[in-house]
Amino acid sequence: MTTSIEELTGRLREFAAARDWERFHTPKNLAMALAGEAGELLAELQWLTPEESVAVMADPEAGARVRSEVADVTLYLLRLADALGIDLIEAAHAKLDESERRYDAATYRGTARKAPPLS
Amino acid sequence: MTTSIEELTGRLREFAAARDWERFHTPKNLAMALAGEAGELLAELQWLTPEESVAVMADPEAGARVRSEVADVTLYLLRLADALGIDLIEAAHAKLDESERRYDAATYRGTARKAPPLS
Amino acid sequence: MTTSIEELTGRLREFAAARDWERFHTPKNLAMALAGEAGELLAELQWLTPEESVAVMADPEAGARVRSEVADVTLYLLRLADALGIDLIEAAHAKLDESERRYDAATYRGTARKAPPLS
Amino acid sequence: MTTSIEELTGRLREFAAARDWERFHTPKNLAMALAGEAGELLAELQWLTPEESVAVMADPEAGARVRSEVADVTLYLLRLADALGIDLIEAAHAKLDESERRYDAATYRGTARKAPPLS
Repeated sequence: MTTSIEELTGRLREFAAARDWERFHTPKNLAMALAGEAGELLAELQWLTPEESVAVMADPEAGARVRSEVADVTLYLLRLADALGIDLIEAAHAKLDESERRYDAATYRGTARKAPPLS
Repeated sequence: MTTSIEELTGRLREFAAARDWERFHTPKNLAMALAGEAGELLAELQWLTPEESVAVMADPEAGARVRSEVADVTLYLLRLADALGIDLIEAAHAKLDESERRYDAATYRGTARKAPPLS
Repeated sequence: MTTSIEELTGRLREFAAARDWERFHTPKNLAMALAGEAGELLAELQWLTPEESVAVMADPEAGARVRSEVADVTLYLLRLADALGIDLIEAAHAKLDESERRYDAATYRGTARKAPPLS
Repeated sequence: MTTSIEELTGRLREFAAARDWERFHTPKNLAMALAGEAGELLAELQWLTPEESVAVMADPEAGARVRSEVADVTLYLLRLADALGIDLIEAAHAKLDESERRYDAATYRGTARKAPPLS
């Protein structure tokens, strides 16, 4: 059983409030923390071949580290969205609407050239 | 009305399949894309004071750019989690459980020193 | 006494060769490592106020960590430039030539709005 | 003919002074800009195979973009080092001294496992 984004966001809000950390959680600082965690995720995958990266979760130790870094990115992303008042799912759907218009399936089929896949 | 993470993940899966882009979407490549988008988010906030960053969504142009970058990060994070078979919300709760144990509220109240707030 | 970029680049080349690590050092992997180290640098500064960041080198422990992360970024940047055959100083001067044309001093004096300072 | 790091650093200092941009150039902000440019570099390489990344400079358009991003990273790194009072070459040699001790060539030959190659 997993809970919703809203519930997790609420838990993060309480976590920060209980430690009086809200004043550190400006959008600027949270964006830095998010990018920092994305950097730690890169460090887990940087020396792997693409094929090895596909299988990384099958290695218990490396898999646990990757899961942990992905979780950190998620926590800061939710906290940042809360600080900015952005509904992540709604914003993501809007961006994907745009991408569907911009990269129509027939033209872009099979090529990544000039086409950053999701956005 | 917003939809669930699962629904958005499914939509991304179809988006990639329709363009035959699955082979580009290795965890290694998706982590790079995620970090790249986190970098674009930094670029929107880097010259702002902390106070200006708190008010950034009130500026229609800057706010739209920030929302767009946050959406891009979300899209790649969901696509990456799908590629890795990670339940984001569950992984994030597990990490927050750890942080609650590690940074007990009484000891860490009000200080960011040596304590990366969320993890 | 410090040595030149060329000398340091040569030392990195020997370091990699002695460990048979050249095959890991593709531009793609080195760019990930560079971005990962940039992320660790962010982590050192993310909870500091801008003013505290100005004084960070005066704190022996934090200063040593910042210096170490800046060194890591430098090492990967030099190794990447070597792998790509780019003369860093020359490329940087060319980019700064462009920025001087694009952001003429009279117009942009004192504003960071729409003007990413160096490039 | 290329010039020295010191000369380029001096040129950057004048560039910032002429535009009254020094107050934006705190270590915190410059680290964000550096990481942001590292993110743009990732974006140039993210969909390439490792082999394609090795050949990227042979493509005039992609090569020029990569060179431009590498130059941006260099500019912000030099500006940051100047703001922090760090001698980049000296700091990098010190870090490489450490790595030579930590990853002795005989033990680590040919494996990237647990061994981030340069540091």
